Amino acid sequence: MSALPASTGAALAPDARTVTVSVSPPYDVVVGPGLLASAAERVREARLAVVSDETVWGLHGRGLAAALEGAGRSVLTVTVPPGEGSKDLATYGRVVRALAAGGLGRDGGVLALGGGVVGDLAGFAAATYLRGVPCYQLPTTLLAMVDAAIGGKTAIDLPEGKNLVGAFWQPRTVLADVDTLATLPVRELRQGAAEVLKTGLIGDPGLVEATERLLLPAIAGAPSASPADPGALPVAELVDVVARSAAVKARVVAEDPHESGVRAHLNLGHTLAHALEAASGLALSHGDAVLHGLVFAAVLGRDRGLADVVERVAGLVKRLGPDPLPTFDLASLAPFLARDKKAVAGRMRFVLLEEVGRPVVVDDVTADELASAWRTLEELMR
Amino acid sequence: MSALPASTGAALAPDARTVTVSVSPPYDVVVGPGLLASAAERVREARLAVVSDETVWGLHGRGLAAALEGAGRSVLTVTVPPGEGSKDLATYGRVVRALAAGGLGRDGGVLALGGGVVGDLAGFAAATYLRGVPCYQLPTTLLAMVDAAIGGKTAIDLPEGKNLVGAFWQPRTVLADVDTLATLPVRELRQGAAEVLKTGLIGDPGLVEATERLLLPAIAGAPSASPADPGALPVAELVDVVARSAAVKARVVAEDPHESGVRAHLNLGHTLAHALEAASGLALSHGDAVLHGLVFAAVLGRDRGLADVVERVAGLVKRLGPDPLPTFDLASLAPFLARDKKAVAGRMRFVLLEEVGRPVVVDDVTADELASAWRTLEELMR
Repeated sequence: MSALPASTGAALAPDARTVTVSVSPPYDVVVGPGLLASAAERVREARLAVVSDETVWGLHGRGLAAALEGAGRSVLTVTVPPGEGSKDLATYGRVVRALAAGGLGRDGGVLALGGGVVGDLAGFAAATYLRGVPCYQLPTTLLAMVDAAIGGKTAIDLPEGKNLVGAFWQPRTVLADVDTLATLPVRELRQGAAEVLKTGLIGDPGLVEATERLLLPAIAGAPSASPADPGALPVAELVDVVARSAAVKARVVAEDPHESGVRAHLNLGHTLAHALEAASGLALSHGDAVLHGLVFAAVLGRDRGLADVVERVAGLVKRLGPDPLPTFDLASLAPFLARDKKAVAGRMRFVLLEEVGRPVVVDDVTADELASAWRTLEELMR
Repeated sequence: MSALPASTGAALAPDARTVTVSVSPPYDVVVGPGLLASAAERVREARLAVVSDETVWGLHGRGLAAALEGAGRSVLTVTVPPGEGSKDLATYGRVVRALAAGGLGRDGGVLALGGGVVGDLAGFAAATYLRGVPCYQLPTTLLAMVDAAIGGKTAIDLPEGKNLVGAFWQPRTVLADVDTLATLPVRELRQGAAEVLKTGLIGDPGLVEATERLLLPAIAGAPSASPADPGALPVAELVDVVARSAAVKARVVAEDPHESGVRAHLNLGHTLAHALEAASGLALSHGDAVLHGLVFAAVLGRDRGLADVVERVAGLVKRLGPDPLPTFDLASLAPFLARDKKAVAGRMRFVLLEEVGRPVVVDDVTADELASAWRTLEELMR
């Protein structure tokens, strides 16, 4: 018997799971440990640009670049300041100019290494530089792994509003290296938990349970700025949560790549969340706003005789500990609710739950229903 | 017998011709007189943004906006300074911000009214605002009618080079109103004649003849800045030239919407042209550079034993009277030639003619062939 050959390629990550997004052309979301170190196996272009923020670059970028260069690739680096402020026209201009100055050609590829901001910004740069070059999403936050990195929505902000300019540009591959989550502050882990919970509510009840069982203990009671306790997040279970979340999103995206129909289901909790974010001048984070929005949607649904998940969702959200519900009255939120794309002719459109795993779009929510659900939300969450 | 009903819709323009571009979804290029005045019949959205440059807005924009408003549409206006300088990131930012500030929604439409600069800029804004809203191209130059407005290539420039950022975004309809050509300076008409001649050489020998018979008399010997003599450009013949040119371009675009193959044929004359433009710091206009480039391609082809159209092309180009061939030596052009996307591994790629109407891509043009053809071009064109 001869010795087994040294393992190479995907075999280096025996714990990895792959979810295929069946758009045209299809692409893989690979979830596992050690994926950045072995990225060269899944990135085919010889010339690459790694776009990252300064924080993520310091933590994971140098290692990624060294690994790629070690595999014979040429690597151009573009870093931007961390934070939503980098999703602006000026930073977008800096990124595409850096790609041009570095001579990246149509046969090159862009690697977006970071959270949702970097994914959106670098994705939009890749979508438009030379009218589109291949893009790889390498999300380093739980939120980006389960949401922004999958589905091809890229965007930057204008002073007039968030995500007003962008493109649909599907990545060539998504590499979700769960090792990067070890450096994630608890607060950022909570942002991701919000989307995992949402994803569970619309498409996989097991993810609601996983949020309670796996994510909650790593988040509840811990100081927001500290890294999550690595011991609380075993790799195999993390991979499972991310891969299952990715599978739900992949299913929805494949049914509706350009967001003309069922992709709206992904907006469970987001109608109120967008209004809370905007009315607070983005002081409330997206994930925390979504957590409040999920409770709000649960109340709206229960009061209409749909699923009653208020107790379970509100209980879980409270223990996850988002920043408090801002002390607006509903009247001051109204303009931001009405501005939402989901508003139709006076009545409001919301995604609600017929039951866990069965979302439904209703577009006739009245002002009275809103007011009543808002009062209940205030009682529950303040 | 009852009276005939009053004519409406497309019947208002009995001289109009329609060319369909068979991409997915297909769209029409309508060529005729009076199309701006009746634009509301072919533009379906209720909320519209007209993007134009200040010159074109003064000549044709007010009338278009009034006609649209008279048909019950709401019209937002965005004007930019005339000239290539407006194809920059700052002006792009101004345009998308104006669309956002004006509250244009996904159910709105962008009308690009102007020459190639406006078409590229407004087309890119439409491609990216809200991740894409419908775009109508309303070209007001012969060059834009036969080239830029058709095919969905949109772009802006970076300081690092022209058209480095953009998107493929097919218009919903192209309205080429030949009435606008009456205000076109002779110099601009010549830019269009260059692309008509190129289009004829690659796909319709009748257009070479039409350039000689119809366009040349309106251009040759006339002062560059004055409007072309309207009497020299009968509407029916203009419509025929524009529609036939559009038909050739539509055929090529439909075969290759994302420029991965035969669309390269549209680059006849453009490899040298791009180098001349870049080396001259854009002092030489695109159309004039293309005219020199067409002679160069004719020489290269003849010297390889392909079609011999040097005498006919050079004779016609000289009479069209482009700005003179700059007094570079070939060595100073070389870096700009090598930078061209069409360069492959030391040898150069060029589109040449096997015969008129039968282009061929060769990718093994040697430095010696280039030097010889350049000397011939200098003899012919200086």
